[in-house]
Amino acid sequence: MTSIEAKFAKLGTDHAPGQEVRQSGGVPETELRGESLPGIPVDFSHGDVNDNAFAPTPGALEEFVEGVHRGGPQAYTEYRGGAELRERVAGKLAAFTGRPVSGAQELIITPGTQGALFLALGATVTAGDRVAIVRPDYFANRKLVEFLGGEVVPVKMDHLAHRDRAGLDLGQLEDAFKSGVRTFLFSNPNNPAGVIYSALEIQRIAELATRYGATVIVDQLYSRLLYSGHVYTHLRASSIDAKQVVTIMGPSKTESLSGYRLGVAFGPAHLIDRMEKLQAIVSLRAPGYSQAVLRTWFAEPAGWIAERTAKHQAIRDDLMAVFGTVKGLAVRAPEAGSYLFPRLPALGVPLHSFVRALRVQAGVTVTPGTEFSPDTADSVRLNFSQNHDAAVQAVKRAAQLIERYRA
Amino acid sequence: MTSIEAKFAKLGTDHAPGQEVRQSGGVPETELRGESLPGIPVDFSHGDVNDNAFAPTPGALEEFVEGVHRGGPQAYTEYRGGAELRERVAGKLAAFTGRPVSGAQELIITPGTQGALFLALGATVTAGDRVAIVRPDYFANRKLVEFLGGEVVPVKMDHLAHRDRAGLDLGQLEDAFKSGVRTFLFSNPNNPAGVIYSALEIQRIAELATRYGATVIVDQLYSRLLYSGHVYTHLRASSIDAKQVVTIMGPSKTESLSGYRLGVAFGPAHLIDRMEKLQAIVSLRAPGYSQAVLRTWFAEPAGWIAERTAKHQAIRDDLMAVFGTVKGLAVRAPEAGSYLFPRLPALGVPLHSFVRALRVQAGVTVTPGTEFSPDTADSVRLNFSQNHDAAVQAVKRAAQLIERYRA
Repeated sequence: MTSIEAKFAKLGTDHAPGQEVRQSGGVPETELRGESLPGIPVDFSHGDVNDNAFAPTPGALEEFVEGVHRGGPQAYTEYRGGAELRERVAGKLAAFTGRPVSGAQELIITPGTQGALFLALGATVTAGDRVAIVRPDYFANRKLVEFLGGEVVPVKMDHLAHRDRAGLDLGQLEDAFKSGVRTFLFSNPNNPAGVIYSALEIQRIAELATRYGATVIVDQLYSRLLYSGHVYTHLRASSIDAKQVVTIMGPSKTESLSGYRLGVAFGPAHLIDRMEKLQAIVSLRAPGYSQAVLRTWFAEPAGWIAERTAKHQAIRDDLMAVFGTVKGLAVRAPEAGSYLFPRLPALGVPLHSFVRALRVQAGVTVTPGTEFSPDTADSVRLNFSQNHDAAVQAVKRAAQLIERYRA
Repeated sequence: MTSIEAKFAKLGTDHAPGQEVRQSGGVPETELRGESLPGIPVDFSHGDVNDNAFAPTPGALEEFVEGVHRGGPQAYTEYRGGAELRERVAGKLAAFTGRPVSGAQELIITPGTQGALFLALGATVTAGDRVAIVRPDYFANRKLVEFLGGEVVPVKMDHLAHRDRAGLDLGQLEDAFKSGVRTFLFSNPNNPAGVIYSALEIQRIAELATRYGATVIVDQLYSRLLYSGHVYTHLRASSIDAKQVVTIMGPSKTESLSGYRLGVAFGPAHLIDRMEKLQAIVSLRAPGYSQAVLRTWFAEPAGWIAERTAKHQAIRDDLMAVFGTVKGLAVRAPEAGSYLFPRLPALGVPLHSFVRALRVQAGVTVTPGTEFSPDTADSVRLNFSQNHDAAVQAVKRAAQLIERYRA
């Protein structure tokens, strides 16, 4: 195997969400148990942005059309995004996160939060660097480090063992820093588990980063979709040098604007400068006309976010109730975001076979836990930003299939 | 300097087109000669997509809006782009380039051609690889190789010495292959010079790639905008193994659709597979709703491309006439695309000072030749996809300033 073949062998996407259509062949008939279960198919690999589920922010398309009519200045922004828009978004994000952001120097608009993650890692990690990555966490995090020639240093999170914190192994994180790690990347709320880091965990991460001079990249994509009774702590507003934190957000999830491909990263000017240089050779800029849609961000109609959050919480509660009937299944109620990450009871078939059977026999698409950590090969992730009734029926079918395939 | 600082020091964008606004300060007053010249400012660093210049393809916005209304399936395509759309575009590109393309296996939709270039290089080049790059050529080509840890092996093109071919130094290219280079990247028509490679040059490139087993990545972004009297030769239709060619195109230039951020790469399935894996961690996918706009591509109203080409040719001819009045200036008439790359007569100030003076005193923004090759520090690039009259007046002002700053 050549070195480039080896590099790409680590970047598999066969089981990545949304790529199911590219999986070759079906499930061997001999593996399938029983008949198919009728019902409306639900693709839990991503949220449903159709009108009968969670449609994009009101006014988004109108802002896009106005952007097209503005012409050149909207099509050809600076690589880091339009200046006026950056100022506007920086003000909103400063208010949301509780610490100032300079739109001129400290923020870049990217093609989705995926773009922001790539740029943030690309601006901090080079060949041979060691990077702390949480297990489980967003599936691309590990791959980004590997593509850049870095080495992943895993830090375990045991969310099922706790209710009042994410359950990060802070001792492992400190050991990583002690061993020379100078970059730590994590999502908060955690993707896939939907749990948030407690104020104490965030404070401890800040202390460790300060002590060891590490840069922390925090993916807060889902931090706006916060359920009642929970408090979210922004790392960048903690007692940490602002030069050591890059925060990533975007309107693809809570606001259902994924089709416009928008994200932002905000952090120290020297890293944003590097990210812009990298963006110049990776995609030039976030789509020009789409950038105009960010004018709707943190400017939604009164009560819209509260209603959207309440609707997601209601779906969460109903799905938790269905999962609660499955003996041996363990799941923690998500505190923010729209992911559920149940650990399944022991099955009589490999996880990937069960995931395929679920899709083929029950019309239920989920993402296998193997995408998020080698330690969660007994779990599946569901994005429950779906039509409420269809999601409940689909999870009932999943519960039936778990019984059928139980070891 | 740490290794990551060194890496980014090579990725400067201060003089990149569209980034002029980020250049610190103005020109020292002492450097400026004479008064400002009044006139409509023209930004030749990119094309003008406004209605009074070259507006986007008719129906593009309507296709976008229909895409939004299709909802989830359009927002969340496969990472390589929507399947039906890939089939459609593959058929058009096969007809245009003269060799079959499989939409299922051999084509990926990307965020702009910049995205396609990054993915194509990322899929073929890894740390330590040596890559042949033309001088002059598109400014990002060199930077892509450097970001990936590769080494640039320059191959000279002397377009001013020829009329019937681009003027690539084929001996240098063969020497590069002999020395172990296995990837060659070039734009055709050449950006910045607007010249096309002759049938013989393309045949020779194909022969050399075949003999040495090299992969050739050809950026054909401007190949549709071909002026009368010229013949364009597609490398992929030459006598070369299809497994050795990746072709890049997109609707950002001739079709003025840059604001939608769309590009495509087509080539062997194993490289397209890698490019999709890389796209998954770089930007996930080309903007979902924007992808729908590709339905207008190679499906423009009858006569629209011919008219657009004729209008560009008329601007080209008028600008060439103005430049023809400047003693000591050398420029070759572009055969395709919308770039002019005049070599200026000797000036009494450094090129970057003259470029700033041109912007400050004459409202004329151009891109310095240093972006394209260290050998073209006496040239500037103009994208003449502009309002016809404003462009002619602006180039007349540039001619005046050349006289003022002449050595």
